[in-house]
Amino acid sequence: MTSQPIRVIQWGCGSMGAGMMELVLRKQDLTLVGAVDRRPEVVGRDVGNVLNLGRATGVVVQADFENVMARTPAEIVLLATASFTRDVFDPLCAIIRKKLNVITIAEEMAAPHVKEPELARRLHELAMQHGVTVLGTGINPGFVLDSLILMLTGVCHEVRAIEASRINDLSPYGPTVMQSQGVGLTPAEFQQGVAAGRIVGHVGFQESVGLIAGKLGWKLDAVEEIREPIVSSVFRQTRYATVAPGRVAGCRHIARGLRGRAPVITLIHPQQILPQLEKVATGDYISIHGKPDLHLRLEPEIPGGLGTIGLAVNMIRPVVAASPGLKLMSDMPLPYCQPVREDAVS
Amino acid sequence: MTSQPIRVIQWGCGSMGAGMMELVLRKQDLTLVGAVDRRPEVVGRDVGNVLNLGRATGVVVQADFENVMARTPAEIVLLATASFTRDVFDPLCAIIRKKLNVITIAEEMAAPHVKEPELARRLHELAMQHGVTVLGTGINPGFVLDSLILMLTGVCHEVRAIEASRINDLSPYGPTVMQSQGVGLTPAEFQQGVAAGRIVGHVGFQESVGLIAGKLGWKLDAVEEIREPIVSSVFRQTRYATVAPGRVAGCRHIARGLRGRAPVITLIHPQQILPQLEKVATGDYISIHGKPDLHLRLEPEIPGGLGTIGLAVNMIRPVVAASPGLKLMSDMPLPYCQPVREDAVS
Repeated sequence: MTSQPIRVIQWGCGSMGAGMMELVLRKQDLTLVGAVDRRPEVVGRDVGNVLNLGRATGVVVQADFENVMARTPAEIVLLATASFTRDVFDPLCAIIRKKLNVITIAEEMAAPHVKEPELARRLHELAMQHGVTVLGTGINPGFVLDSLILMLTGVCHEVRAIEASRINDLSPYGPTVMQSQGVGLTPAEFQQGVAAGRIVGHVGFQESVGLIAGKLGWKLDAVEEIREPIVSSVFRQTRYATVAPGRVAGCRHIARGLRGRAPVITLIHPQQILPQLEKVATGDYISIHGKPDLHLRLEPEIPGGLGTIGLAVNMIRPVVAASPGLKLMSDMPLPYCQPVREDAVS
Repeated sequence: MTSQPIRVIQWGCGSMGAGMMELVLRKQDLTLVGAVDRRPEVVGRDVGNVLNLGRATGVVVQADFENVMARTPAEIVLLATASFTRDVFDPLCAIIRKKLNVITIAEEMAAPHVKEPELARRLHELAMQHGVTVLGTGINPGFVLDSLILMLTGVCHEVRAIEASRINDLSPYGPTVMQSQGVGLTPAEFQQGVAAGRIVGHVGFQESVGLIAGKLGWKLDAVEEIREPIVSSVFRQTRYATVAPGRVAGCRHIARGLRGRAPVITLIHPQQILPQLEKVATGDYISIHGKPDLHLRLEPEIPGGLGTIGLAVNMIRPVVAASPGLKLMSDMPLPYCQPVREDAVS
């Protein structure tokens, strides 16, 4: 590892952005050179203070990203501000116009062509024009229910159908997540919330299904999504949620990619608090039905927040080295863990 | 899939080569245009006859590869003739000089720089000079005990140690494999065979350990290999081998990559006939010790022959599209299953 350090600007210093900065500071050959966030409670503070590192880093959080980017030479920006392509489109364009590479954890950007083909086309053209690379990544979409599935199919002679599930525990999450999954509601309130669009379940199924089908060359006739209440038979309680028996502990979100009436891609993501109270183990499960059949288990599941932070930071070097344009994880070389500094090994 | 069909020449029409030709014939957008093998029993026969397809393909097996390559326009050669880099070096050079891309399943070519750095350097230079891509791939080395491990580490903040094992069943294999694993010997004969180099165990551990350590930025102080007899407590019999209780059912081959005295990479590959007779399940198992810890299981194991054939054929399109040079699987985009013809879905 004798290559030039890569200079990184973090844009969005919330819980995911903070995790990314902490990891950038620990990695060999990466240097954190800038931090952007508009929230008054962090603007003007040294990143070491924001992260409770007990030391100053010399990098101060600034509200004005144009100013940071104009004054701070860098190779790449990590963007962690929003989930939807339309909400990160303007920041992405601003970054690309400064001739900086960018990695975003916006869920839809794992496959922006699925829901926003026009924005994806414009991002690709702008990136080509300015000679930089744009990548969306994250644990899901971006890894467990798409890239890892595709990677496994690489050994297959043919694939007839795919079923995969990611069973996790929402207990660490706060009120926003509890509301978006309907935790604590009655089953009837849950159904009303789904109908009204308040209960969204998982963001990323259309992207994962689109990524898989696109690479496997499958033309799907439809992609259906189903959001079912996970009704608890026991009392469950976390810091942010209380669920009485008969009430909703979370949302079982299912996506099915259909060819004709046959579900050739089935992705299942039940998200709830404390599944272990009903003896449900957490894990990631993939079954490929084809030649050969493959059955993969990762128990427990890959932790979502940690995994997204890890992927975003580990992809920095490959993205800087990549040819220009808007990329998918499946266009990129295999991700792998970039080395940490010797003095930072925990 | 509207792209131009890729024209493929198969070099080496043994059991792996035959499987590759059969799969090339079934894939969309691939055309088998040539077949090379020196064995008199196949020379001059139509590939359809060699493969028992019940139809002619118009491709006849020829002994003289220079002749085939000179007269048959193609984009890529699949080379399946030998396991070691030094044994495929001349054919690879001949292919590259014809400006053809090449994928080989020679085990050492999964990471040729590990044992043959000079040959790897020369292959890379020649490939650059002629503008073509050279890739070694296969199930192991090439996938289970290296690429899949690296891919998983992509979510990690740091990795402290890796342990993985591949437990398979040698029952389908013939006398050559039985001898190279010591099946049927007494434990003393097994130890003599290891000392004399007749019992080799698995070919590919140095490559897998080198691939992992190289990408993770780990400087290893040593790589040890251990070959232990798997002594059967029951009677085991296959078409090609008979093992009485107290005799050897196979070889437990272990590789350890050490930093100082600490094994940071441990790869275990016990190969035996009929492990299920002693209630040993077959499977691929990976544990990453780091942040986070990850535990993957694939049960049963990915079938070795099928998997190697699948990878070699699925990598054709990415190799043709890749920039020139000698590549590792970890340099390439994610493998995925290329579509089969609609009329070939089984």
